[in-house]
Amino acid sequence: MADLYVGVDLGGTNIKAGLLDPSARVIASQSIPTKAEGGPDVVIDRICRIICQTAELGGVKLADVAAVGVGSPGTMDIPAGVVLDPPNLPGWKDVPLIARISAQVGVRCVLENDANAAAWGEFWAGAGREVDSLVMFTLGTGIGGGIIVDGRVLHGASSCGGEVGHMQIVEDGRRCGCGRRGCLEAYASASATAARAIEALADRKVQSTLRQYYGAGQRLTSRHVYEQAVAGDALAMRIFDGTARYLAMGMMNLSMIVDPERFVLAGGMIAAGDFLLDPVRRYFKQMAFERPAENTQIVYATLGNNAGFIGAAGVAMKAVSGT
Amino acid sequence: MADLYVGVDLGGTNIKAGLLDPSARVIASQSIPTKAEGGPDVVIDRICRIICQTAELGGVKLADVAAVGVGSPGTMDIPAGVVLDPPNLPGWKDVPLIARISAQVGVRCVLENDANAAAWGEFWAGAGREVDSLVMFTLGTGIGGGIIVDGRVLHGASSCGGEVGHMQIVEDGRRCGCGRRGCLEAYASASATAARAIEALADRKVQSTLRQYYGAGQRLTSRHVYEQAVAGDALAMRIFDGTARYLAMGMMNLSMIVDPERFVLAGGMIAAGDFLLDPVRRYFKQMAFERPAENTQIVYATLGNNAGFIGAAGVAMKAVSGT
Repeated sequence: MADLYVGVDLGGTNIKAGLLDPSARVIASQSIPTKAEGGPDVVIDRICRIICQTAELGGVKLADVAAVGVGSPGTMDIPAGVVLDPPNLPGWKDVPLIARISAQVGVRCVLENDANAAAWGEFWAGAGREVDSLVMFTLGTGIGGGIIVDGRVLHGASSCGGEVGHMQIVEDGRRCGCGRRGCLEAYASASATAARAIEALADRKVQSTLRQYYGAGQRLTSRHVYEQAVAGDALAMRIFDGTARYLAMGMMNLSMIVDPERFVLAGGMIAAGDFLLDPVRRYFKQMAFERPAENTQIVYATLGNNAGFIGAAGVAMKAVSGT
Repeated sequence: MADLYVGVDLGGTNIKAGLLDPSARVIASQSIPTKAEGGPDVVIDRICRIICQTAELGGVKLADVAAVGVGSPGTMDIPAGVVLDPPNLPGWKDVPLIARISAQVGVRCVLENDANAAAWGEFWAGAGREVDSLVMFTLGTGIGGGIIVDGRVLHGASSCGGEVGHMQIVEDGRRCGCGRRGCLEAYASASATAARAIEALADRKVQSTLRQYYGAGQRLTSRHVYEQAVAGDALAMRIFDGTARYLAMGMMNLSMIVDPERFVLAGGMIAAGDFLLDPVRRYFKQMAFERPAENTQIVYATLGNNAGFIGAAGVAMKAVSGT
């Protein structure tokens, strides 16, 4: 049996998979639509199909795959391999995903949270290769998170560790998609950045070049906020600066609690480059304790959309090696 | 060499020490004044003296002590064994505490943060014996914290992990002793509970039985707030309920990040018993994600003031065993 691993990144829209060797080299990878509307049976069939196809694409037999790792969205019981209630996968409720996949493909299989898998990917093969601990924030519609401490994923007792987007940073603050108020996600995600701009524009007295994207039939995004901030629009600059400041607040809290060697930022918003990273670093330095303010590095992820399946393969490798 | 350990809990007022066996049995213990005003040389002499005396009190020679653990306050570099800048120990600056103690007593010595040591004590021998992970909050003048994950202390890259009292829960909130605003400590510590009551009483229209402790020469404490809340005073009830709610907020955030099996509360305020614990549990259930809300236990510490030296001895034992 060769020392090869398949990592699967299960999303509401697409399933991505890759075949990797122990040095994190991607031998083959592909992406197929999830067809989530078909319910768990259809999706599990598709996961098994992409596992087989990815091995084939890499020129190996399934028997040459030592283990499969699957990164899944939603709440789950990681040790049991059961996906409980994923919002983006209709019809799923307490699905024994790992048992079903390994029965179907005949290969050992392990479950991981999708955001944890991405963090493990960056830790193993990306922006966190040189460190022992990191906290990753993925800035999208929400804020996904993953925490690595002493070279292990922090899963938590209920498989809920690393949900950094839902720490409360503002008492009785903005409403979050999770139903709570004041979550980091409700301030610093890409969606929240756009939403804060839209709310400001509701005041007709506010002048801003963002107004061209505001109103019926329009969809103002965090990208517009970024572009207009770069162009010097005062409102866009204030909103974007707020995103950086709230992110730094979240990092300060993580620094007080986990004190990681490195923060890794991922997701579409990192296209803003230093325009986001510089103020995040500056605010973090102001807010954190003295030693973390000096020592903690804040960097961008390097694996892009591949972090999920790369990390899932890495998790599978770690499970097999038993470390 | 016998399998015995000395744990030292270094405080601004007293130094406590105990001789323990590997089953966490306290064979001997004592407490002496720190005499912090004498500066590091005096205090280190006294630490060495209490180590020798505690061994003697336990009927063993220093040569029978396998290792010494020292829990120290303040910022520190744990792997280096250096205490950086402890607010309660005047004259201390970058003191190589561990090198100096082990040179003086001739026994292997390890450093730990005092709050981490207390958490390890409860994990090893107290309220956390049955679990793999816990977060401890010690409610006093400040809020000390310690985090155990997968059976290890979460030290952090800059030895700042577990500073749960300084996570921000309120944006631009109350001023904290650390200089920041909105820290948990500024809302839910014993001191903050008293301070919130005193601030409310500044409004002369507020009627409250707490007024008897308010004014020149008086010192209203969290104990008064507790007693008057039990007696049914509306203001005291509101303040005390706020403390429970803020504590639960802090726990919710820790639950999102670390997701421990158990929270352990310690410090003088736990004398309030179920009058504090019941609302903390109720608020946590309302605030946390579904699975942690169901699964996470919230309990009181059981080792009292001995947790620090017991945990320090346990840390020494763990260092020797190399696990």
